[in-house]
Amino acid sequence: MTAKLADAQPTSTGTEEAEAATAIRGMRERIDEIDAELIRLWQERASLSHQVGATRVASGGTRLVLSREREILDRFRDALGADGTQLALLILRAGRGPL
Amino acid sequence: MTAKLADAQPTSTGTEEAEAATAIRGMRERIDEIDAELIRLWQERASLSHQVGATRVASGGTRLVLSREREILDRFRDALGADGTQLALLILRAGRGPL
Repeated sequence: MTAKLADAQPTSTGTEEAEAATAIRGMRERIDEIDAELIRLWQERASLSHQVGATRVASGGTRLVLSREREILDRFRDALGADGTQLALLILRAGRGPL
Repeated sequence: MTAKLADAQPTSTGTEEAEAATAIRGMRERIDEIDAELIRLWQERASLSHQVGATRVASGGTRLVLSREREILDRFRDALGADGTQLALLILRAGRGPL
């Protein structure tokens, strides 16, 4: 994915000013690294969360633990505000797997 | 935040089976680490993205670059499917700042 993007036509920086364009390209490089890491962590987290659910169900436990979901919702909302709530809802849904 | 959670009443594992409960607690520890890293990366990314926008506007450029937003949308959708699209839309909104 990264290689494919690097080979493609470089994405416009949206400015004609050379110094600004260079600064933007530098910041975008770091953003691209962050995105790769976000994707990696997202996949690892979803896999762990599915394992937690499968372990619980296999041992005769509940499918979900709502107090744990509430804890995670609070964690993201406290750190990131309204965006954190949206992010946590997405993370929790990805972690539950098919209901 | 982590300290506060650790001090609180431990969250139920949702199972009565000791071995399963231990496994779940171990996986949750790693999930908690991942969440802390997701939050850190989210904040760094939003800050960088705001800087990119400010740099562009200050140099007389456009406020947004839609081809770059499309690239990011594709990246998350390719890696994470429908969840990736939702995640990218949230990330892009957080990165745009107040319009």
